[in-house]
Amino acid sequence: MAGLTDSLSRFASNPGFATLPGSASAVIKTGFTDTIATMIAGRDTEVVQILREFVRQRQSSASEAQVLFIGEQVASNDAALINGTAAHALDYDDVALGGHPSTVLVPAILAEAERLDACGADVMRAYLVGYEIWAELSRREPDPYHLKGWHPTAVLGTVGAAGAVAWLNRLSPEHCRHAISLAASMACGLVANFGTMTKPLHAGRAASSAVDAVRLASAGLTAAPDAIERHAGYLAALSPKGAADLSDAVELGERLRILESGLSIKKYPMCYSTHRVVDGVLDLVEKHGIRPADVETVDATIGVSQASMLRNHSPATGLEAKFSLEFSVAAALISQKVGLTELTDNYVRRSDVRELMGKVRIHTSESSCPIEPVFALSDQVTITLKDGRRLESGDIRFARGNALLPLQDHELKAKFLDCCASAELDADQLYTRLNSLETLKSIRELAVFSELTTV
Amino acid sequence: MAGLTDSLSRFASNPGFATLPGSASAVIKTGFTDTIATMIAGRDTEVVQILREFVRQRQSSASEAQVLFIGEQVASNDAALINGTAAHALDYDDVALGGHPSTVLVPAILAEAERLDACGADVMRAYLVGYEIWAELSRREPDPYHLKGWHPTAVLGTVGAAGAVAWLNRLSPEHCRHAISLAASMACGLVANFGTMTKPLHAGRAASSAVDAVRLASAGLTAAPDAIERHAGYLAALSPKGAADLSDAVELGERLRILESGLSIKKYPMCYSTHRVVDGVLDLVEKHGIRPADVETVDATIGVSQASMLRNHSPATGLEAKFSLEFSVAAALISQKVGLTELTDNYVRRSDVRELMGKVRIHTSESSCPIEPVFALSDQVTITLKDGRRLESGDIRFARGNALLPLQDHELKAKFLDCCASAELDADQLYTRLNSLETLKSIRELAVFSELTTV
Repeated sequence: MAGLTDSLSRFASNPGFATLPGSASAVIKTGFTDTIATMIAGRDTEVVQILREFVRQRQSSASEAQVLFIGEQVASNDAALINGTAAHALDYDDVALGGHPSTVLVPAILAEAERLDACGADVMRAYLVGYEIWAELSRREPDPYHLKGWHPTAVLGTVGAAGAVAWLNRLSPEHCRHAISLAASMACGLVANFGTMTKPLHAGRAASSAVDAVRLASAGLTAAPDAIERHAGYLAALSPKGAADLSDAVELGERLRILESGLSIKKYPMCYSTHRVVDGVLDLVEKHGIRPADVETVDATIGVSQASMLRNHSPATGLEAKFSLEFSVAAALISQKVGLTELTDNYVRRSDVRELMGKVRIHTSESSCPIEPVFALSDQVTITLKDGRRLESGDIRFARGNALLPLQDHELKAKFLDCCASAELDADQLYTRLNSLETLKSIRELAVFSELTTV
Repeated sequence: MAGLTDSLSRFASNPGFATLPGSASAVIKTGFTDTIATMIAGRDTEVVQILREFVRQRQSSASEAQVLFIGEQVASNDAALINGTAAHALDYDDVALGGHPSTVLVPAILAEAERLDACGADVMRAYLVGYEIWAELSRREPDPYHLKGWHPTAVLGTVGAAGAVAWLNRLSPEHCRHAISLAASMACGLVANFGTMTKPLHAGRAASSAVDAVRLASAGLTAAPDAIERHAGYLAALSPKGAADLSDAVELGERLRILESGLSIKKYPMCYSTHRVVDGVLDLVEKHGIRPADVETVDATIGVSQASMLRNHSPATGLEAKFSLEFSVAAALISQKVGLTELTDNYVRRSDVRELMGKVRIHTSESSCPIEPVFALSDQVTITLKDGRRLESGDIRFARGNALLPLQDHELKAKFLDCCASAELDADQLYTRLNSLETLKSIRELAVFSELTTV
């Protein structure tokens, strides 16, 4: 068979789908819409402010792509850096393939699409190229990258996004190969930096490096024709236990993995491991009209891996609360939602929130979901009331928003509007336009919204 | 003990040497002088031209540090990117700690020193900080990084140079810690891309990422306090066999590893594995007045690992010839030197060169040098003449230029002048100034040479 690097490059050069299947198209549009929402929601975070100043220090007059929908234009690699970081800053972006595909793909594609004046349909095809390359790399490694210390979003994202951007630039197969191989040499990002500003920067760097790799390769910079698969190449170097499959035939273009894996959209700006329990609590609150004062205890059962991530049993800040099951249960009981307005330091420190957090007990289950191995087969939650009643959720198999239990349109829109609430833009109009992304003659039509913010 | 990340950061914040030992000072000045020579020699290579255009596309008006001693000023991270790539482009830069320390440290330090208007003595101290951090990381991994696929110059260099630049910026211990931990998340570069333009780019990216990490950390970007040593952190993620020592006490500042390991300076712009044999051939030529036409055969014995790197038995280009023992022997016999003028495509294709290449036979030895495990304990070369005489080199233990067999001053200067031969600058004056680096009140005094080139 042809080498893997070569196969990825041929696919990125000529993916061979003139029209996208409707179901793939819907997933892709959801990915763009949701990522832009989390990017806008994350735009005032401290890490994004630091990066904007970092980019300003270059004193660049390149005006290729917009930053954060605020009417500011910078070089496209700098736009990808800032926008990718913003999209990942709140841990609110979508999930698939053991990582966060859209938070790297979308900022890289948008930045280059704006520079190139690409149409909406091409932007969507570029996303599919990036997703499929990412999936092809991901499936070859049986062990979680986290096990070794690698942040999969960063290390797989750099190469996947390079493929997407290479296609958007209509690179030749040879230049694609250099771009993908060069991107493999730019793949980095450590799990050790989770919980710090460096984590979202991984996504921004991956998006920006993808743009860099394509620019350099198209200018003639060379890289190895087999850097992905060769002995001690990309897949081997990153492999947690040295078990990467370097020889299995490439199936790119024959089947679309996006139709199998889709995207899981987060309904709450919390660690994904809390989501099933939050769903269960909200259902019980709605069904039984539970008031916080009625609650005696809450018993939640989750998987061992989930529990290991939810380390913050008594969080003091909004950032810490993202990784607290106790907090998520308390917020669900008190506010009947867990959104951006709950994830503030002030809210976390409220006495009623803290009191309820103390009533939550976590149990673990050894079972494992065959589709998402980080999770138990199902989670359960039981609320015991002061009057003695025990209210049980039953088995919660998938979180709402999971690819296998998708959010309804109105739920997606509610998240979008919530994310845009603090931004001075016409969120309704932007949402409508993103929902007909395939009809946009130029991706620059999205930029008109920035005018609204700079009035 | 304090954590390793913390110890590295405290050292970078306060290394505690007011004056450098003379022997360390000499090594550091050699590192700067030789790296600037290889940077100047590499400045017209294609990869450097591509990177200069890549930086130009930013349309940056930042004017912080010079590029390639040619009177052009750019942002310091961009200068580090271009200069680091140029210094590594010809495989002619110095060797130590299983990699190439100066090709990352020197460009990063020079770029930031120029921006900060630092003095020569501080520049030298910054180098020592970077070298010692690099050595501290390097000694904790018993297996060659190459084994897994990682380019040690790139992955260790990013963190070492971040320490150096952090000290130059007088970062607090806390900001140093964020910078070093962030740099750990930027560490990347694959051996798979050796032999392509991506290899020198690894050095440039490492130098530039180091500057980025320090800028971002000093602006408040956070990273983990223990990213280097924690479970599945930097050392573990990169470890070829999972055997990195994460617990041994830190000895930074107590002993100077630069006094033990030094720097090996390449006398020939060839893979280091050829150097001992070239020395042996040149000695025999000088001693016996051998003419190329007199040679019947050349038998060279080298280590197994050396032989595995010297794969090009019949090279067609100057780039390929860098990894050919046959070529290096032929050039040494014909030109009585192996320099930049021999490593051209035209020279490699000369019929007399090709004829002599055919007379070289390679043998391997299973022995191994305890100091440099990639090498045999010694190499040997035997030249058999057409008149039947057998001329033997005896055991060649270290190449000339090795840290344990240093070049004489006039040899260092000859290399420097050869590297600068095609550049329009006063190489003599630059050499003199670099040799009194510790007396420069401002590193910007080095920039005066650029005026000579732009006349």
